[in-house]
This record gives sequence, structure tokens and C-alpha cells, in this order.
Amino acid sequence: MDKELIFGHQNPDTDAIGTAIAYSYLQNKLGYNTEAVALGEPNDETAYALKKFGFEAPRVIETAANEVNAVMLVDHNEPQQSVSDIDKVKVTHVVDHHRIMNFNTADPLFYRAEPVGCTSTIMWKLFNENGVEIPQNIAGIMLSAIISDTLLLKSPTTTDDDHKAVEALAKIADVDYKEYGLAMLKAGTNIADKSEEDLIDLDAKSFSLNGNNVRVAQINVVDLPEAMERKDAFLKAMDESSKSNGYDMFMLLITNILDSDSEALVVGSDETKATFEKAFGKKLSDSEVKLPGVVSRKKQVVPPLTDAFEG
Amino acid sequence: MDKELIFGHQNPDTDAIGTAIAYSYLQNKLGYNTEAVALGEPNDETAYALKKFGFEAPRVIETAANEVNAVMLVDHNEPQQSVSDIDKVKVTHVVDHHRIMNFNTADPLFYRAEPVGCTSTIMWKLFNENGVEIPQNIAGIMLSAIISDTLLLKSPTTTDDDHKAVEALAKIADVDYKEYGLAMLKAGTNIADKSEEDLIDLDAKSFSLNGNNVRVAQINVVDLPEAMERKDAFLKAMDESSKSNGYDMFMLLITNILDSDSEALVVGSDETKATFEKAFGKKLSDSEVKLPGVVSRKKQVVPPLTDAFEG
Repeated sequence: MDKELIFGHQNPDTDAIGTAIAYSYLQNKLGYNTEAVALGEPNDETAYALKKFGFEAPRVIETAANEVNAVMLVDHNEPQQSVSDIDKVKVTHVVDHHRIMNFNTADPLFYRAEPVGCTSTIMWKLFNENGVEIPQNIAGIMLSAIISDTLLLKSPTTTDDDHKAVEALAKIADVDYKEYGLAMLKAGTNIADKSEEDLIDLDAKSFSLNGNNVRVAQINVVDLPEAMERKDAFLKAMDESSKSNGYDMFMLLITNILDSDSEALVVGSDETKATFEKAFGKKLSDSEVKLPGVVSRKKQVVPPLTDAFEG
Repeated sequence: MDKELIFGHQNPDTDAIGTAIAYSYLQNKLGYNTEAVALGEPNDETAYALKKFGFEAPRVIETAANEVNAVMLVDHNEPQQSVSDIDKVKVTHVVDHHRIMNFNTADPLFYRAEPVGCTSTIMWKLFNENGVEIPQNIAGIMLSAIISDTLLLKSPTTTDDDHKAVEALAKIADVDYKEYGLAMLKAGTNIADKSEEDLIDLDAKSFSLNGNNVRVAQINVVDLPEAMERKDAFLKAMDESSKSNGYDMFMLLITNILDSDSEALVVGSDETKATFEKAFGKKLSDSEVKLPGVVSRKKQVVPPLTDAFEG
């Protein structure tokens, strides 16, 4: 069988990398010939999880068509979040927990999406449905993905299925998931030794909203005031990134993982900023606004922005 | 829980109607509040299957947003094949076996697609995965859907999963699937009391191939020579339909479901007819050509036509 690559989205997080590793293991057990790769280096949190469970970081690819004819996607489907030459390969499988947007195929395919907190929660079901035993290290990396995406089951995206998956995977991985989870999340909050340019690109996604190229980045911290001391430098980096990449709006969500509160910084035209204010029903003050309780880009940021831009 | 409607595509076939009935039963067992409806009256074959297993034809709807806020789709995803006001309702679930095209959502959803012969084959898996027992009549209508889509497991779209589902469902439905399936397929082949205008529109799809508007219709029969006695009237109807709808080529595939052979009738310009001949490597004789073994529009007609028009 021809080899296929499996990967998550650009600027990979623990779900994108961890679930790709798990899916490749499962698919190879089921007779496919796959390799888990990544569209970028692991962030600090993901690196912590990979090390904890004994994995090397997946090989980073720039393009896919030079290696394979077909690929499998996890944790994304929108072409602009995928490999740069996604239009030159056939997508045979998708496992995802996001909305579907601009994803078109020429042929029927496997597509498995559920509105749960993390792709690894669906992956856990796929192992069970296919009767494939989950090895300890695979359970550990899937557990890490769910803890990451749900902020230790506290994000509003969290479902009963995520709770069940975490309980089951923690048992197989043989870890105290609360203790391990907090340590892993904290490993991803060290922003002191990173530049603003790097921080606004670590966990960032682009969305096409009614013709506007909207960038939404997120940083997890344990000390919001400390992060906000770098506000001017963040705004400058966001402005420069918008100019070079053609973003019509750039929003940076800085989330305190300990109390689930966020501050947002926004760069854009007067028009897109007004649309942002309409989306959240709040006024920006000096490009800044408090968004208490907002921790999920997918559930609490993209839907109101979509409504405001397209409404 | 707010009520949701479940339906298949326009011009519904046995998969569109049968799988909607089965999915509504399953979802209601799982705690949803759903009703299976249809975007048109059942055809003769579907009516036969519904009667056999004691179902009324689902209520036909023209629009959805006047009744519900949310819907679930089976056997399709492309908006132009769906209810007319699909853009005014939220799609929460899709179960399908087609390519994904122009299907966009604002929020994450349940999406389950597999490249198998029939949506009811996936539905059979969903019952099993959720541990919901399949009642005899639901098994019967799902069995009917798979027999219909796969022409009794003989179409090249048929997979191992379709075979397994048919075996399991026939047992629950307590029917000899070969005997019943042939009777059901034959019920859909009564062309005697239908006009040529109706017959060329019963199961017809349009494709845009390199700027050409290509129409491909299919009729199932048990007596090819009898159908071909109406050849001149078919060609006249195809010619008139092409003129009023702007088709550059109109192909009618008349398939003998007993021996899986087909005759094709083709109307178009000299140029599009030459492209047709290139596609199948055969010469048209008086607008007609034999295509032995060709039964699947999706797998055996559209791909060679696409290659010939775009190559």
C-alpha cells in the first residue's frame, strides 16, 4: 500500500502532533502505511509531553506532494491551515473537531468529526471501535492532547466524552492526570525567553471571514499582568505580521490558565476593529479589551467573529 | 431538546429516504428529538421497500427553517442537492458517502463519511457502535437502501463493509436478500407508464467538465430491447431538454439490472460526441453505443468523461 503522511495544522499544538502520532499508530495496525509528521516544531508544552512519554518530535515537512500522493489530516480541515501544497495531494481521511470550511474533495473519503474538546477524544473512540489496544505511551500523548485542548477539562468546549477519554487514558498511561496536566500546561506558559514575534505565531490560525483574512493567536500564561507589560511590543509585532502577511485583523488572546480569564489585543483597520467590538459587545480601549471566561478560540472567539463579519 | 429534521437529497432514492428513517430512529433512541422527512415523493422502488417493511412515505418538505432551527443530513452534503433554505438552518449532523463539496459550517458538528457503497452501511455501523438494537423493519429499510445503491452488491462502488452490512441486516430483517432485492429493483424498472421526458429526469445529475455542461441520466430496466424501442422518443426528449437547459452533452445510460450491462444514448455537438467516443474508446452508431459492465455513473462514467473533456 502506498505510503501516506498524517499531520495536524500549521503552528502545531499538542493535539495536532499527539493525535497525528496516535492516528498513525492506529492506521498502521489497520493495514495502512503511514508516517506521522508535523507542519512545525513542537511548542514547549508539546515538547514536555513528547519527552514525558518517550517520543521524538515528528519530522517537519514543508510540502507533501514531493513525497506522497495521499495524506490524512487530523485536528484541521481548512486548506489555509494545512500543508502549503494541500491542493496537490489527495486527502483520504480526516479526523477533526472543528467546523468544516472550504474543504472540498473530488472523491468520497473517510471523514470523522465530532464537536468534542479534542481530536484525541475521537481518536480514543476510534481505537475502541476498531478493537485496537492503546499502548501506554500512545495513551499518554493522547491524554496530553486532551488536557491541552480543554485546559484540564475546564474549557467550555469540554464534553462528557472528553472526561471519559481522560479517565480511561490516564489509567492506561498510569499518571495522575491533574498533577501531570498542570505541570504540562505550565511548561507551555514560559513566555519570558521568547520574542513577541515568536509568541504571536506559536498558536495562531487564519480564518477567511467574508473575504477578510483574520488571524487569531493565543498565548497561555500564569501571570496576566506580567504578560501585559509587553503590550506595546505585542501590538508592534502584530502590526508588522499583518502587513507582511496581508491580515485584515490580528487578534491576540492572552489566557490565564489558572483562572480561565483572558485579555485580547487587536490590530486592524477601524472597520475590522469595529466588527470585533460588535462581535464581543465590548469597546476596545487602546487596542485592548478584557474577555473574562473566554478561553476557547473555537467556541468563544471564532463563532462571534464569524457572525459579526458575515452578519 | 429542540426538534430537528433529518432528510436525504432532492429527487430522493431508497438510500436518501431509508437512511433518514433509520437515522431518526437511532437518534431518538440516543435522546434527540427528530423526524425523518423527505425532499420529494418516493420513487417506485422506494415505495416498494417502504410498503414491504410497513413504513409510510416520510412527509415531504419544501423548506426547513419554518419548522426547525437545526437539521441532520444523510446521503448528501452539497447545498444545491439539499433543502432550498439550507443556508437558514444549522446542520448538526451529516452521515454520507459522497465527496465533500461547498459544505461549510460556522460551528463544529458531527460528520461521518466513509467511501462505501451506501449511507445505510455507515448507519449499520453507527447502530453497532452505539449499542442500539436494530428493529426488524429498520433493518429491512436499511437493507433496501444498500441493495438499491449497490445494485445487489454488483456495482463497482461495493465494498466489504457493504457485504457485511447486507448479511447482518438481511438476518435481522428475516428476508432472502437476493430474492427480495431483485423484486425491489424490478419494482423500480417499470418504465412503461412514464413519459420519456419524465424518465430522463428521474435520476439525472449535471457536471461541469472543462466549461461544458454535461448531463448524465440513468434508467434501470430488466428488458433492454424493450426500452430501446423508445430510442427515438428518448433522443427527442434529450435534445429538447438540452436546448432548454443549455446542456452541451446529454448522456442517457439505460442499465439492465439483471446482467449489469448498459446501452448509452448520447445527444450533443459533433465535438462533444467525439469527446464521448474518446472517453469510452468506442464509436457511437446512430447516437447509440453498448457499454457492457458499466453500471455506476459515479465510478464508471464521470471519471472517463472528466478525463476526456479535461485531458
